[in-house]
Amino acid sequence: MYRTHNNGELRIDHINQEVTLCGWVQKTRELGAMTFVDLRDRYGITQLVVGEEHIKIAKELGREDVIQITGKVIERESKNKNIPTGEIEIAVKAIYVLNKSKTPPFTIEDKTDGGEELRMQYRYLDLRRNPLRRNLELRHRLSIEVRKYLDSINFLEIETPYLIKSTPEGARDFVVPSRMNEGQFYALPQSPQTFKQLLMVSGYDRYYQIVRCFRDEDLRADRQPEFTQIDCEMAFVDQEDVLNTFEAMMVHLFQQTKGIDFDSFPRMTYADAMENYGCDKPDIRFGMTFNYINDLAQNKGFNVFDQSESVIAIVAEGCSEYTRKQLDALTDYVKRPQVGAKGMVYVKCNEDGTFKSSVDKFYSESDLKEWADKCGAKAGDLILVLSGDKAATQKQMNELRLHLGNELGLRNPEIYAPLWVYDFPLLEWDEDNSRYHAMHHPFTSPKKEDIALLETEPGKVRANAYDLVLNGTEIGGGSIRIHDKKVQAKMFDLLGFTPEEAQSQFGFLMNAFEYGAPPHGGIALGFDRLCALFGGQETIRDFIAFPKNNNGRDVMIDSPSIISKEQLDELNIYLKVKEAL
Amino acid sequence: MYRTHNNGELRIDHINQEVTLCGWVQKTRELGAMTFVDLRDRYGITQLVVGEEHIKIAKELGREDVIQITGKVIERESKNKNIPTGEIEIAVKAIYVLNKSKTPPFTIEDKTDGGEELRMQYRYLDLRRNPLRRNLELRHRLSIEVRKYLDSINFLEIETPYLIKSTPEGARDFVVPSRMNEGQFYALPQSPQTFKQLLMVSGYDRYYQIVRCFRDEDLRADRQPEFTQIDCEMAFVDQEDVLNTFEAMMVHLFQQTKGIDFDSFPRMTYADAMENYGCDKPDIRFGMTFNYINDLAQNKGFNVFDQSESVIAIVAEGCSEYTRKQLDALTDYVKRPQVGAKGMVYVKCNEDGTFKSSVDKFYSESDLKEWADKCGAKAGDLILVLSGDKAATQKQMNELRLHLGNELGLRNPEIYAPLWVYDFPLLEWDEDNSRYHAMHHPFTSPKKEDIALLETEPGKVRANAYDLVLNGTEIGGGSIRIHDKKVQAKMFDLLGFTPEEAQSQFGFLMNAFEYGAPPHGGIALGFDRLCALFGGQETIRDFIAFPKNNNGRDVMIDSPSIISKEQLDELNIYLKVKEAL
Repeated sequence: MYRTHNNGELRIDHINQEVTLCGWVQKTRELGAMTFVDLRDRYGITQLVVGEEHIKIAKELGREDVIQITGKVIERESKNKNIPTGEIEIAVKAIYVLNKSKTPPFTIEDKTDGGEELRMQYRYLDLRRNPLRRNLELRHRLSIEVRKYLDSINFLEIETPYLIKSTPEGARDFVVPSRMNEGQFYALPQSPQTFKQLLMVSGYDRYYQIVRCFRDEDLRADRQPEFTQIDCEMAFVDQEDVLNTFEAMMVHLFQQTKGIDFDSFPRMTYADAMENYGCDKPDIRFGMTFNYINDLAQNKGFNVFDQSESVIAIVAEGCSEYTRKQLDALTDYVKRPQVGAKGMVYVKCNEDGTFKSSVDKFYSESDLKEWADKCGAKAGDLILVLSGDKAATQKQMNELRLHLGNELGLRNPEIYAPLWVYDFPLLEWDEDNSRYHAMHHPFTSPKKEDIALLETEPGKVRANAYDLVLNGTEIGGGSIRIHDKKVQAKMFDLLGFTPEEAQSQFGFLMNAFEYGAPPHGGIALGFDRLCALFGGQETIRDFIAFPKNNNGRDVMIDSPSIISKEQLDELNIYLKVKEAL
Repeated sequence: MYRTHNNGELRIDHINQEVTLCGWVQKTRELGAMTFVDLRDRYGITQLVVGEEHIKIAKELGREDVIQITGKVIERESKNKNIPTGEIEIAVKAIYVLNKSKTPPFTIEDKTDGGEELRMQYRYLDLRRNPLRRNLELRHRLSIEVRKYLDSINFLEIETPYLIKSTPEGARDFVVPSRMNEGQFYALPQSPQTFKQLLMVSGYDRYYQIVRCFRDEDLRADRQPEFTQIDCEMAFVDQEDVLNTFEAMMVHLFQQTKGIDFDSFPRMTYADAMENYGCDKPDIRFGMTFNYINDLAQNKGFNVFDQSESVIAIVAEGCSEYTRKQLDALTDYVKRPQVGAKGMVYVKCNEDGTFKSSVDKFYSESDLKEWADKCGAKAGDLILVLSGDKAATQKQMNELRLHLGNELGLRNPEIYAPLWVYDFPLLEWDEDNSRYHAMHHPFTSPKKEDIALLETEPGKVRANAYDLVLNGTEIGGGSIRIHDKKVQAKMFDLLGFTPEEAQSQFGFLMNAFEYGAPPHGGIALGFDRLCALFGGQETIRDFIAFPKNNNGRDVMIDSPSIISKEQLDELNIYLKVKEAL
């Protein structure tokens, strides 16, 4: 062992002990003939006092050199109350440089001077910084607690294969050419969905896995081609059981890692979420819910509202004194192409009880008072109104609401507001291809009471599907699955599969359903996202040790890369680019 | 919830309770108007008594139907002491068939009538059988205990990427074409080796991961293209620390999952293992170690021995009465091409103190007595002798020893004999390519005292490398790594890399070594194999939920498979087969 202690554990009780420490030189300060060295490792920082006898080596110490020292623990004269080891320091007797470091390309400090690109290239140095270390430690802790909890209620972690079969449904697969099976390919799993369902057929009634998944998508910001999922499935359960089980798991995680206690999570139907928040993953840390004021706002001569399917108002509390400039900025915001509104109407509910709006020409003070009453706005508040087609206006108002939530500081990342959204539609209509897509996935069970609609109005069928939402972000989703071969075949038919296609791609699952498949359902939680939210941050990248950039590249190892002609030959593939040369 | 209890938990205390159970019909027996049903789930079997009122449904119940019943727990008249629920049964009040099953293609019993192929095809049914269920439960338990132990001593589980970079050193990589980076490929990791070393550079001084690894090798029996590893690395340690840490982990696993207590594991150098057992992973559950009898056996006129580099003898205790037929069978065994010996000499140490050998023409009784004395053979034992080139003879004798161990029942899978083998050679000479290969891998550190030999006799350099052997199977291997860029560059040079090749493939690691790399080392344990051995079995296949066959195929999902032209086009690759058409 190169050390007797780490750099985070020495205290006043250790005084007079001789210790050996190892670590990285965080910084050095000379004070006369003495040199003070901050020695860092994963556990903390310990101050070393290096005397004159080692002055030569001390003078040559540079940032990030790896050293080993032996010395005596002594009490500090001026104690540092900010760090746990701040009451002691080490009077160094011997010092060895284990490995010199070149000057790092950026500072290894909580606030570094390194840019994103440089830090990605030298990820191994960026990972030395406390914020990233804390993120990975949190990730470890969460995975341990997930397993501890699920193990305690009889879930088995069962590993499913990574080299599976390509299925065109869903996102694009990453594929792996098979050398031993010429012309054939494996695919990397987008999720272990079919395998976990097979495990239910096999009688493993409580399965989970913390598992890597892969999607070859054009990467949007903060998406990764490989990501980690807490993947779970249960047999002999209905929706209520799944929700209760994983709510309890989340309560455990909040309790164990954040010290936050929850009794239970609120629940909201998809229909209510869309009606009141204009989105299926509402951020309920703040109110500002939608008010439909068609009845009050229409037929008063304001053409814009009269021609709208929906007139939707929200209330920004205490914002009646917004300036012209602030209001214009909000109007500009909603008119951005990404939001797409044509304009915005405002009503100031002044402190003196009067009203001032951008549509005073059409509405009297008493009209506006009616709006305010309906919306629950009080003196001092600001009402903002958008109008148009219902779905489009809901979407726009959702954006405006979130934007205001950010502006008004209502989205504190240290506040946690989990929410179940349930009763999702089974199918969504794809205008481009004139066909239905599965909203969740093709294995999701329709609600019993809506099954008749499958034949007549498939778009209205609700599913036994649910999402877990945290602070406006979907962190998990699941469903009760189909366990009947006929219903599954019907579902594939609705999704435009021929029976042959369904059989060739999912025949193994449909066959399995003929041998005693139990009712079952489950959920998958995005583990990267969960870690980021528990860490109070929005981006997942710094909760992954070695992430890829937005082009799917690992710039540190410079991957992907070309492979040799011998490798291509063995796999029996040609590259198109090469052919064109 | 579809049930109030599972099928393994009801006891005499539950009598008179009304319960609802779910599960699979294991079997039914009619007894007059009553039908007895064994209801099975993962937790056990509960006996149901179905009365006349349900006779219609009871008569139609088939094996593997999924049912739900409600009934009252009653005391059995004839108790079954073999199962935990054997004192009670359920008087069924209501019974529902949740899903009918076709007749399964083989019986779901501990000893099934299904052949290997059929069971692989219907893996989801095979997994219902108790032996496989127990295997997966053991696997889960082992993974939980590994994590619990490592977490308790400050190891962090850190996930490393699966889409990495292809490097030709070592086995063949599986590769993944990148759509976004035309003509370039990711590779699936053969192990997270370089990433875990980078994590050491990053200061995460205790890392582990239970992680999937991939090797595109021609599959020998009982190898899988994807396999799971317990991958670990530590900083500021030497070999002794790594051995002690993971020995303690193994002691914990034996204790927790097998109830077996170990104080410590024996250790043996590679040189001693080769000398005494002729292999680097000796099965030390039994003795039968090698005796070199050149001095006694040579120069007595027996040409075969006289011309041999080594004459090696082992003692089969109590086998002096082996028949001609048994001895011939042993001779045939060693002469098989897979073993490759030219012949075998035996000496029977008869109970009466006389000796009888196959070379009586050349050796007197007193000569043979000297052999027996040297080998420690006593009256009643059998001495077996092979001779020839030392390395070849050691190898052959190892095979003979293991064969005899099996024949004599000395290799009981319920007995556990772990062993550390250490001081492996750094390099091995590859005759075919006239170059050195890294025996462990190119990142392994030579022993300090042997570093001078790197320049003069590289083949003699020993490494700080070690294997953990259990019952004659290597279950783990590791080493202290190189952490100095110059030594690493020297190593790549010895392995025949040009500086450019080394830089292009491993530049990121060598660069990292310039920024304060600590001394570090680690180990990786084969988790599939570990599970199999802890389960008292030799093959790993039944400890993996969904394994592949020897052609790398998953016959259940029929993978690998062809992919669509659109997929190939997007990836910018052609298939050679297609081109040839």
